Amino acid sequence: MSAAAAKPILYSYFRSSCSWRVRIALALKGISYDLVPVNLIKDGGQQFSAEFKALNPMQQVPALKIDGITLSQSLAIINYLEETHPNPRLLPQDPKKRAQVRMIADHIVSGIQPLQNLSVLKQMGEKKMEWAQNCIASGFQALEQILQHTAGRYCVGDEVSMADLCLAPQVANAERFKVDMGPYPTITRINKALLELEAFKISHPSRQPDTPAELRA
Amino acid sequence: MSAAAAKPILYSYFRSSCSWRVRIALALKGISYDLVPVNLIKDGGQQFSAEFKALNPMQQVPALKIDGITLSQSLAIINYLEETHPNPRLLPQDPKKRAQVRMIADHIVSGIQPLQNLSVLKQMGEKKMEWAQNCIASGFQALEQILQHTAGRYCVGDEVSMADLCLAPQVANAERFKVDMGPYPTITRINKALLELEAFKISHPSRQPDTPAELRA
Repeated sequence: MSAAAAKPILYSYFRSSCSWRVRIALALKGISYDLVPVNLIKDGGQQFSAEFKALNPMQQVPALKIDGITLSQSLAIINYLEETHPNPRLLPQDPKKRAQVRMIADHIVSGIQPLQNLSVLKQMGEKKMEWAQNCIASGFQALEQILQHTAGRYCVGDEVSMADLCLAPQVANAERFKVDMGPYPTITRINKALLELEAFKISHPSRQPDTPAELRA
Repeated sequence: MSAAAAKPILYSYFRSSCSWRVRIALALKGISYDLVPVNLIKDGGQQFSAEFKALNPMQQVPALKIDGITLSQSLAIINYLEETHPNPRLLPQDPKKRAQVRMIADHIVSGIQPLQNLSVLKQMGEKKMEWAQNCIASGFQALEQILQHTAGRYCVGDEVSMADLCLAPQVANAERFKVDMGPYPTITRINKALLELEAFKISHPSRQPDTPAELRA
């Protein structure tokens, strides 16, 4: 296999917060990749095509073709990248701090995002916006309290971790759903610090190949 | 601190699938612990008490007090146990197989369980049962396909892994919501093999201190 053929391929949608998590990890670790856009809206959702289903039975983005396998689930992908490309690390060395990172990441990935996912919102009809706002607000209340114990400049101390890769995309969703961020000063402060980092900038939804012109930064 | 005081405390609800995941991990690793039942139904939900909120701002079970910290989120807890009590291991050595384990675990933990969680179902009114069935069936369709590539005796090869700790509790939920398991022969076969293991038996919802008499095995 040639070097070019071995380049990882990321299946991504510009506005998918789960895809953005993986784009940040790839950027931080300096892994170059080809991006294949999967439009979750167009044609009733391109993730439902037979072609994409063969690639990822979960019919979701992100999916990453790498090292001869295809992975899905953003945190599983990020953990694989962490183990195969350990620098810079996205988990602290201390087991207790690692546990805090994972607790925050899982709270976002399992406790907030799935409830305001496109596939759920579709079934909510006109209650869509209110549903999404309630899910995010309730999750952020808990997160704000936890971060008051764990945060330094970022979610856990002063090193960017997997928790931060989940935080910034979730805040972007909150803004999209017009959640009042007033009650969450710690979340807001950390998010601001993260958005100053180059890896978060180049992976941002406003700067993807599939970002529509009117949403481009 | 005395040895007795240092014993981990698990906050658990007999029927919570997320609590069961952690109970299996503790049993497999031979970690002895005290169990504090948190009844998610009684008194409007004991997880919402001020006392429990101070312990876990996410107001969910499981939570584990261990080594001077309190952890929540089942997979974060299981990963911490894996790092501090590595035997028997719950992740394979090969990074690609580890990624498969994590992909399956995350698919259940983020892609299926949150959508049929008590807090979501409460808001579904009379559509509750149908909603839960659809979420689980749709998740199991993808899972069945994935397992056809990864499974041996268990979810990934022949070693019990974190994926299996998520599988058995999710199948128990499926049964509770009367999901037709006919289309999922691989899931059914693996679940049966898991339920034969002592660690899965003693941690089973039918054998907990807070299991109501009429549901006891």
